[in-house]
Amino acid sequence: MKLASIKSASRDGTLIVVSRDLTSAVEVPGIATSLQAALEDWETKAPELEAVYAKLNAGDLSAAFELDPVTLESPLPRAYQWADGSAYVNHVELVRKARGAELPESFWTDPLMYQGGSDNFLGPRDDIIAGSEDWGIDFESEVAVILDDTPMAVTPENAGSHIKLLMLVNDVSLRNLIPAELVKGFGFFHAKPSSAFSPVAVTPDELGNAWDGGKVNLPLVTHLNGDLFGKPDAGTDMTFTFPQLIAHAAKSRKLMAGCIVGSGTVSNLDRSSGSSCLAEKRMLEIIDEGAAKTPFMQFGDRVRIEMLAQDGHSIFGAIDQQVVKHEA
Amino acid sequence: MKLASIKSASRDGTLIVVSRDLTSAVEVPGIATSLQAALEDWETKAPELEAVYAKLNAGDLSAAFELDPVTLESPLPRAYQWADGSAYVNHVELVRKARGAELPESFWTDPLMYQGGSDNFLGPRDDIIAGSEDWGIDFESEVAVILDDTPMAVTPENAGSHIKLLMLVNDVSLRNLIPAELVKGFGFFHAKPSSAFSPVAVTPDELGNAWDGGKVNLPLVTHLNGDLFGKPDAGTDMTFTFPQLIAHAAKSRKLMAGCIVGSGTVSNLDRSSGSSCLAEKRMLEIIDEGAAKTPFMQFGDRVRIEMLAQDGHSIFGAIDQQVVKHEA
Repeated sequence: MKLASIKSASRDGTLIVVSRDLTSAVEVPGIATSLQAALEDWETKAPELEAVYAKLNAGDLSAAFELDPVTLESPLPRAYQWADGSAYVNHVELVRKARGAELPESFWTDPLMYQGGSDNFLGPRDDIIAGSEDWGIDFESEVAVILDDTPMAVTPENAGSHIKLLMLVNDVSLRNLIPAELVKGFGFFHAKPSSAFSPVAVTPDELGNAWDGGKVNLPLVTHLNGDLFGKPDAGTDMTFTFPQLIAHAAKSRKLMAGCIVGSGTVSNLDRSSGSSCLAEKRMLEIIDEGAAKTPFMQFGDRVRIEMLAQDGHSIFGAIDQQVVKHEA
Repeated sequence: MKLASIKSASRDGTLIVVSRDLTSAVEVPGIATSLQAALEDWETKAPELEAVYAKLNAGDLSAAFELDPVTLESPLPRAYQWADGSAYVNHVELVRKARGAELPESFWTDPLMYQGGSDNFLGPRDDIIAGSEDWGIDFESEVAVILDDTPMAVTPENAGSHIKLLMLVNDVSLRNLIPAELVKGFGFFHAKPSSAFSPVAVTPDELGNAWDGGKVNLPLVTHLNGDLFGKPDAGTDMTFTFPQLIAHAAKSRKLMAGCIVGSGTVSNLDRSSGSSCLAEKRMLEIIDEGAAKTPFMQFGDRVRIEMLAQDGHSIFGAIDQQVVKHEA
């Protein structure tokens, strides 16, 4: 099943069911008006939404309309929790290597995770508004999951059953604001403005064999200004699976329905597949050539993030965003 | 005006207007069912709620009921954003001094702030559930404000107008989980489980002259197991005012209605007024006596946080919580 939120007067948008081929959609006011509401009563709502999805795919719904991704919010236009891991540890190692720092051994067993802002996500086609190009504007292509209510101290073995939906993410990062925040030790605040998510969120069955219960075994494709930038496999070199990330997040608290957990920037040890963020490419340039030559994003630049199934169809639709200067 | 949320079938509780003396309350389903909903349409809703408040205080509402704080959620039982500053820089300096570290000069001009989890706040009388006493369970008594929609890059001069409500906070902290998280540089996750807020949120006018537009000039009183623990003045030694904290939070993004911004642990240079967290008391012991002797909270311990007006009445009601062991 594929679900999305269409822009509306509500801050949560309006929940729609989207056809498998992403061309048509239908509102479901009789089931739930928002995705958050559906997630809070998922056991009841999911079968009702699945029934609509089957009819929509069969072309049996007269209320169906043609879907334009520009009209979409992120599937959850805002959330009560956005916890972003950093599960591709070789990416972290690379970042450290470029600045001459060792990777602590514990990073291979104890996940990195930061608490992200979640009050105002960008839609998949919304502009990325930044105050200055000097902020070092970057994208991060990632995979994320949405949970139902998840108990405190859940084990990795039991955490997987709480994954209800998957999405793609552009975890927008302001690289030049990170060093000052890292020194302070309180995590990211300025450096991590609103993230954007893929047009649709999908149930795990939509991934078929590509979903192994822990990770998504498909390339995550990023284009920068129309050129292929990277297509690392999201299932390769993922040190921590989603159930492990969830168990980490739930160590000292429960996680409530609608909580989003992210994978961190997808990255493969095989560098021929390219990268999922500019920072990694710049690190490789520093290591290989002594200096970074790829600039961060400038106003007017576009990033496109998508994942294709083995048969070539777009699973989540594409995040496609332009960077625009903030006007007061 | 004083507002609260009573526990109900809704995850947002049910909005109630509370009398100035905190003894009676009334539901307002015709105006808004939740505080979040009221905040999203504050210009319309605030005058309607104020009218109810006036009648409630006059004893003119037959639907009013006696208020028991045990039945309350935090005013916002969950929020889309919880950004906690650390505005009492002498407290930060003390923490550093105890471990022999210098305070960077920039800490006096550039606020510390962390992104907190906000999907599941504790009610003001709810238990603090912790997995182990070894986690170093601590309270932090703070003041917080709730905002309406606040634009990106708002100035300190304009930020104050977005403060709609004030509350007290117990920013529960797990001290022994902090060092491992600080080393990782991604901020707090395990060490900052759910916070609890005061029974009611109040409009700034409820503070009278004690609210100067930037800070609350009244002592914040903390009791531990019935004994006075500290009563530092929240308006003294607050290096950054709330408008300055808000402007800091909004540097690279807008803040949406219902965003909560916290002051950080209230602390005075005059040590005779006591502390607002166990960690600070322990730091003073280390500095003065060479070792900490006050333990962190044990299962069964209670913390009570309250602020009294100059005439002695309780402005926000009391946070009063017991620490309880997590049972799987």
